[in-house]
Amino acid sequence: MAADTAPELDVSEWLNGPPQSLAALRGKVVMVETFQMLCPGCVSHGIPLAQRVHQTFSHDDVAVVGLHTVFEHHAVMGRDALAVFLSEYRVTFPVGIDRPSGDDVPSTMARYGLQGTPTTLLIDRAGHVRFHRFGRVDELVFGAVLGQLIAEAAPTTEPTATSSAPVTPLGADAPASHAS
Amino acid sequence: MAADTAPELDVSEWLNGPPQSLAALRGKVVMVETFQMLCPGCVSHGIPLAQRVHQTFSHDDVAVVGLHTVFEHHAVMGRDALAVFLSEYRVTFPVGIDRPSGDDVPSTMARYGLQGTPTTLLIDRAGHVRFHRFGRVDELVFGAVLGQLIAEAAPTTEPTATSSAPVTPLGADAPASHAS
Amino acid sequence: MAADTAPELDVSEWLNGPPQSLAALRGKVVMVETFQMLCPGCVSHGIPLAQRVHQTFSHDDVAVVGLHTVFEHHAVMGRDALAVFLSEYRVTFPVGIDRPSGDDVPSTMARYGLQGTPTTLLIDRAGHVRFHRFGRVDELVFGAVLGQLIAEAAPTTEPTATSSAPVTPLGADAPASHAS
Amino acid sequence: MAADTAPELDVSEWLNGPPQSLAALRGKVVMVETFQMLCPGCVSHGIPLAQRVHQTFSHDDVAVVGLHTVFEHHAVMGRDALAVFLSEYRVTFPVGIDRPSGDDVPSTMARYGLQGTPTTLLIDRAGHVRFHRFGRVDELVFGAVLGQLIAEAAPTTEPTATSSAPVTPLGADAPASHAS
Repeated sequence: MAADTAPELDVSEWLNGPPQSLAALRGKVVMVETFQMLCPGCVSHGIPLAQRVHQTFSHDDVAVVGLHTVFEHHAVMGRDALAVFLSEYRVTFPVGIDRPSGDDVPSTMARYGLQGTPTTLLIDRAGHVRFHRFGRVDELVFGAVLGQLIAEAAPTTEPTATSSAPVTPLGADAPASHAS
Repeated sequence: MAADTAPELDVSEWLNGPPQSLAALRGKVVMVETFQMLCPGCVSHGIPLAQRVHQTFSHDDVAVVGLHTVFEHHAVMGRDALAVFLSEYRVTFPVGIDRPSGDDVPSTMARYGLQGTPTTLLIDRAGHVRFHRFGRVDELVFGAVLGQLIAEAAPTTEPTATSSAPVTPLGADAPASHAS
Repeated sequence: MAADTAPELDVSEWLNGPPQSLAALRGKVVMVETFQMLCPGCVSHGIPLAQRVHQTFSHDDVAVVGLHTVFEHHAVMGRDALAVFLSEYRVTFPVGIDRPSGDDVPSTMARYGLQGTPTTLLIDRAGHVRFHRFGRVDELVFGAVLGQLIAEAAPTTEPTATSSAPVTPLGADAPASHAS
Repeated sequence: MAADTAPELDVSEWLNGPPQSLAALRGKVVMVETFQMLCPGCVSHGIPLAQRVHQTFSHDDVAVVGLHTVFEHHAVMGRDALAVFLSEYRVTFPVGIDRPSGDDVPSTMARYGLQGTPTTLLIDRAGHVRFHRFGRVDELVFGAVLGQLIAEAAPTTEPTATSSAPVTPLGADAPASHAS
């Protein structure tokens, strides 16, 4: 696996639909919104952004996946609490529960080296991480990165190394909100 | 001139910098923000969006141009009033005064068939109008269209007919906010 | 007990401080913010308003009390989940857990006949309910009612019947957002 | 005239209705919103607040008066420009043009010693300035002060000296946003 290829999601249970995998979504742009249901920034910004992307863009081009990466207060953010949360907040995209690891930090969160929640990831059609942002995301900047990734061709069976280049058209004035 | 090629701007005077032309900006994505200084929607939404684009994206890729398309109350929205307005609102992108036509509607506004203000236009690197929106623009959707246009290659000297295709990756759920 | 006198709070446990009672708070204006921790309107509007009132006004004049009135999904909104919620959302005013009644609707919620959450109550210095609003509260209107109640003198030991008059200075244009 | 009595408005022309005077409004709470039509903070915050107060509270209790205190760029903020501005922004409360003084600062602005625009004033039923704020006003705090002033009785013909006490119920936590 090339260094830039996004690690697969390791999920113990899926809510809001059938199991998802990055492998099966290859060819689409994938937004992975990692959150905890009792994280204020997730509730105010991360989840609403993910829901808007899910409702706005064609599902042929963009797949939105939530990932419940609980790394604290595990006892009160279990599966049943999450299900109520998703219903009350009218979240309709599929949400996976990041697999407990025995440590506080669950499995996928560790694979990606996430700092905390909310963290928003964009994975391009070829399966490479092209946007990784901890904290609030600017909608204009995020939209521009998403649009660029949508515009890229889906990979052939042999993706070239150059397809994992970071998104570069944003200038020096742009917030430091994306990284490969 | 092909049907889709953006008409040239017809401007009587430029503020905030030297004269601009779409011809000279060919190869970049151009955002044209048309406004009137006493239009509430322009002040609340259109001008702040244009200013943010101007500050966020590389000027090698994206040029922002304001166009003061006064079609009512001409006596109180003249050149000197506009200059004060631009200073007070800290607008730093170049702004052209749409040339008076003898009619209420000024010259460029008539060429583009604009309904009113604010109207936001995006012109691709090849000089074709790809986004034309009267009223408030959704930042996420606008960002995505902008990102897609940034991702397109600059035209060779002989642009192909297909380069003027409307931006299509946005799905059926998207607001009807773009048109070629 | 006179018809207008606010029923006492019936609470099984207090978080964020010692037990509170309306009887003990007599002489102050009391804001009672009823909520459920997984109710989006409570998280977006009700709790932030209560927190702002708690931080803005003198505690000699205004007491803010939260009341966790769980009437659905009891299993996932228990005492420990609430404690995490209050910590994560930095709620610093005292919060009581409305006493379970055996029915879905807890004890105090039934006494007050609340329709749902969030519901915001204002109780005047003499112990009468003067504002009762289900849903989002307008800050300007709420502030005006609060200011009027602050301005009223604390009751003597024999409050007069007229002290329970509804707040009337708001005109016919005001939203129908208060009731005795 | 007592030190605290609000100076009379000195206006060269009234728009949106007949001439107003503080003397004639005695007995009501008066909100005076001073602004310049090309001042961004006035357009974003001051004028919308004044319009909301005008629409929300009974005109028997609260009178809203705008005052166009132009102290810069006089040539482009004249009477006709102001009339267009008020129409475009749907301002419906009466607006006086602060009388030119021969100096940059107009007459009423000098009388009140205003620092700039927007400045929001509240004058109580007895004619005393009780709130004087330059810059953005917090709606919750402003509402509370307004509510307290509404709750005060209208003066008899011989107001007592104590009626001009500053609004004091706001505690030490309150923003420093009011002064007598």
